[in-house]
Amino acid sequence: MDQEVLHQAQTRMENLTKPPRSLGHLEEVAVRLAALQGRVKPELGRGAVVVAAADHGVVAEGVSAYPQEVTRQMVLNFLRGGAAINQFARVADAAVYVLDVGVKGELPDHPGLLKRKVRPGTGNLAREAAMTLEEAQRALEAGREAARKAISEGATLLAAGDMGIGNTTAAAALTAALLGLSPEEVVGPGTGVGEAGLLRKREAVARALGRLRPGMGPLEVAAEVGGLELVAIAGVYLEGYRAGLPLVLDGFPVTAGALLAWRLEPGVRDHLFAGHLSREPGHRHALQALGLRPLLDLDLALGEGTGAVLAMPLLRAAARILHMATFEEAGVSRGG
Amino acid sequence: MDQEVLHQAQTRMENLTKPPRSLGHLEEVAVRLAALQGRVKPELGRGAVVVAAADHGVVAEGVSAYPQEVTRQMVLNFLRGGAAINQFARVADAAVYVLDVGVKGELPDHPGLLKRKVRPGTGNLAREAAMTLEEAQRALEAGREAARKAISEGATLLAAGDMGIGNTTAAAALTAALLGLSPEEVVGPGTGVGEAGLLRKREAVARALGRLRPGMGPLEVAAEVGGLELVAIAGVYLEGYRAGLPLVLDGFPVTAGALLAWRLEPGVRDHLFAGHLSREPGHRHALQALGLRPLLDLDLALGEGTGAVLAMPLLRAAARILHMATFEEAGVSRGG
Repeated sequence: MDQEVLHQAQTRMENLTKPPRSLGHLEEVAVRLAALQGRVKPELGRGAVVVAAADHGVVAEGVSAYPQEVTRQMVLNFLRGGAAINQFARVADAAVYVLDVGVKGELPDHPGLLKRKVRPGTGNLAREAAMTLEEAQRALEAGREAARKAISEGATLLAAGDMGIGNTTAAAALTAALLGLSPEEVVGPGTGVGEAGLLRKREAVARALGRLRPGMGPLEVAAEVGGLELVAIAGVYLEGYRAGLPLVLDGFPVTAGALLAWRLEPGVRDHLFAGHLSREPGHRHALQALGLRPLLDLDLALGEGTGAVLAMPLLRAAARILHMATFEEAGVSRGG
Repeated sequence: MDQEVLHQAQTRMENLTKPPRSLGHLEEVAVRLAALQGRVKPELGRGAVVVAAADHGVVAEGVSAYPQEVTRQMVLNFLRGGAAINQFARVADAAVYVLDVGVKGELPDHPGLLKRKVRPGTGNLAREAAMTLEEAQRALEAGREAARKAISEGATLLAAGDMGIGNTTAAAALTAALLGLSPEEVVGPGTGVGEAGLLRKREAVARALGRLRPGMGPLEVAAEVGGLELVAIAGVYLEGYRAGLPLVLDGFPVTAGALLAWRLEPGVRDHLFAGHLSREPGHRHALQALGLRPLLDLDLALGEGTGAVLAMPLLRAAARILHMATFEEAGVSRGG
């Protein structure tokens, strides 16, 4: 964040040909984009979304409405362009990168797929550590690598997406652990698990939280209660931060990954933009902790990065605000 | 609206590779776009926004924070590309058409400007009829003509925008008249008029409403209490409806124009999509009357069509939902 440019952009914003604050939330977005890019008139080009995929041992507890094989099937669907994220990315000028850090079963070689399987799914977080610290480090590095590839191929705006049957349970555990919340505050229906499943999710999260010990670092916490794709997502955002890019959040699992990135590197926060507010109850807590206001509120609860990619055109539009004429430039009279 | 396609699109929506209802509000948008286009897989291309501009005699009552000459100055700003609508249209792949139906003062010839001045500003609606019925008919036809031009030049998605110092007062009067609301329910700060100005706005609206007589038709009501650009906006939407296009609403003045179109032709309703929810309090009432949920809620209060154009990428994304693979097509297992 360039504080001098931030100040210059704020001053310019006050002098643009529009009533003060009439572009609402987008004005704050515009000024922050200017500060991140170090220029008063920011420009956003192509976007990218890294969709990290992995399986979750906790599905054995009956926490999801979908069978585990759907993770792998949906990765194949991503590679064939049949999923929501493919369709949205197409109209939002964003490239889709799929990253396997822990999908159960074989995946084909494909130019859109980065194969970095750390292990075929996590351990069952209700009963054991999800992964070792070394595995978490590898998942984090895989996310960083995917982001580097996206950036080297032209991304000016970076998002992460998630695919993993059972991952709202892992996201709930990780969010609760990092923010000191109760299972009740963070567990929601996910893809639609029903009342009994909801109770099983809460119980699984409570048991995972029960294994945490004082003094554990953020990555140790994530290894104990998180998910491989959530850790990879943290890596995506850490690398995007290192490269100085604006970073767009998706829903609950992606934001859980971003919380981990933030705990590992507090500066990440300044680069984050909340794409949307998910129906998952824990998402609101996570965005509040980050101090972010969502751009969209459309009752989405899909993941894959869909809510992030839908918000990308809004970020591009916000950047254009600072390209408007000032009252002086346009010869327009000011209000009284 | 093709009811058979509507039904087919709903069925396809239930079979796409995503949890049921996980794309929230966008699913309803997608299905309606399919029905409007008469194809299960709708496609949206270029958008267009007709920005109708006119002045308002009611500014004599001290209802605006800006001097009247700003209407003309802002039209010049539109033609030079310096306004918010130009910047947003650029990133939303939308063409901007400016329509003068009643700006005070001369405007230059310009390829982006349709000069159809009916009169140089309305009468002061607090004291006299805003315009004659014949003038309202001419303003309506000017809006229709601008829409025809936009459609003939490739618009697949049509919005209206507004520019007119004082027009939130006219919009409040027209909205209250058409929906049977009180001045208190529809009058807000507009571009920021302050407390005393707010009272003057309420008083002006109350006096205008006091002249309405039972049995007046919608266009007679608009002639008495409305604005030239608001009537033109009704014409834009009526022509877009006739052409079968999806129509995007902007904020309070544009939605007041759309209410008039709806009263003149009830079928218009099925074609309308609410771009955003404005800060102006009357806007919520108008959208409720139309039964529309806004796509964006970003505290915008600018007009010019900005909120409509910002929503266009969301409509394009919604159309793409129906291009996703079904569970069967993708070989993905269903939830239980």
